[in-house]
Amino acid sequence: MNVQMLRDAYMEYISCLNAQDWPSLHHFVAETAQHNGRHLGVAGYREMLVRDYQQIPDLRFNIGLLAVEPPIIASRLDFDCTPIGRFLDLPVNGKRVQFSENVFYEFVNYKIEKVWSVIDKSAVEAQLLR
Amino acid sequence: MNVQMLRDAYMEYISCLNAQDWPSLHHFVAETAQHNGRHLGVAGYREMLVRDYQQIPDLRFNIGLLAVEPPIIASRLDFDCTPIGRFLDLPVNGKRVQFSENVFYEFVNYKIEKVWSVIDKSAVEAQLLR
Repeated sequence: MNVQMLRDAYMEYISCLNAQDWPSLHHFVAETAQHNGRHLGVAGYREMLVRDYQQIPDLRFNIGLLAVEPPIIASRLDFDCTPIGRFLDLPVNGKRVQFSENVFYEFVNYKIEKVWSVIDKSAVEAQLLR
Repeated sequence: MNVQMLRDAYMEYISCLNAQDWPSLHHFVAETAQHNGRHLGVAGYREMLVRDYQQIPDLRFNIGLLAVEPPIIASRLDFDCTPIGRFLDLPVNGKRVQFSENVFYEFVNYKIEKVWSVIDKSAVEAQLLR
C-alpha cells in the first residue's frame, strides 16, 4: 500500500464518520474487522459508531496527529463534544468535554482490519472534578 | 530525518529506559521537551521516569506497534507489571496488571521534543474488578 493513497483512504474514512454515511462504511472497514480484540465486522463496527452518535449527538472526529507507515496508521483524534449520559463509565451527563483518542489501525487492501484504541479517560475525569 | 535512523533512535531510547540509563537520556530527549503539554526538559523527563520506576519496580517498556513518519513516531507500548501502590489514581496495590499506552512523539534532530501519551486506564480498572 502506498503512503499517500493510504493517508487519503483514512481521510475519506474520517469524512464518512463525520457525515454518518453508514452505507459507505464498507469501503473503509474490512468484513473481518476487529476493534480492541473484538471481532465486529462491518455490521458490528457500524453498530458501535451508531451507538457512539446516540450517546454523543454532537460527536465530530478531528485528526490532531497522524503517522502513516503502511500497513499501519496511527492517529490522534481530538474531540470537543457533549455526551448526554454516562461516557467511559463516567457521569458526564450533558457536560461539554475535550479529550483525545490515540488509535492505531492495521489496513489490508486499504481497509481497516484491526483497531487498537485508547481514549484519555483521565482527561474526562479531570474535567468532571472542575 | 530518515525513517530508519529515526526508528533506530527510538529503539535506543526504549533500551535506555529499560536499562534505567538516565545519564544517556539526553541523547534521546530534547532540552525543551514537553510531555502532555507540560514543559519538562531532560531533567523533568528523567524525574518522571525515575518516579515511574519507584512506583512500578518491575516496569518494562515493550513496543507492540510502531508507525514512523518523520518527524512523528507513534508507538503502542505494552506493559505487564506490578505497581506497588496507587497507579493512574487507582488502588492497584501490588496486583499484576497488563495494559497499553498509545503514544505519539514529535522529534527534532532525532530527539524527542513533544509527547502525547494516553494510557489505557479502563483496562486497568477492569482488572481490579476481577
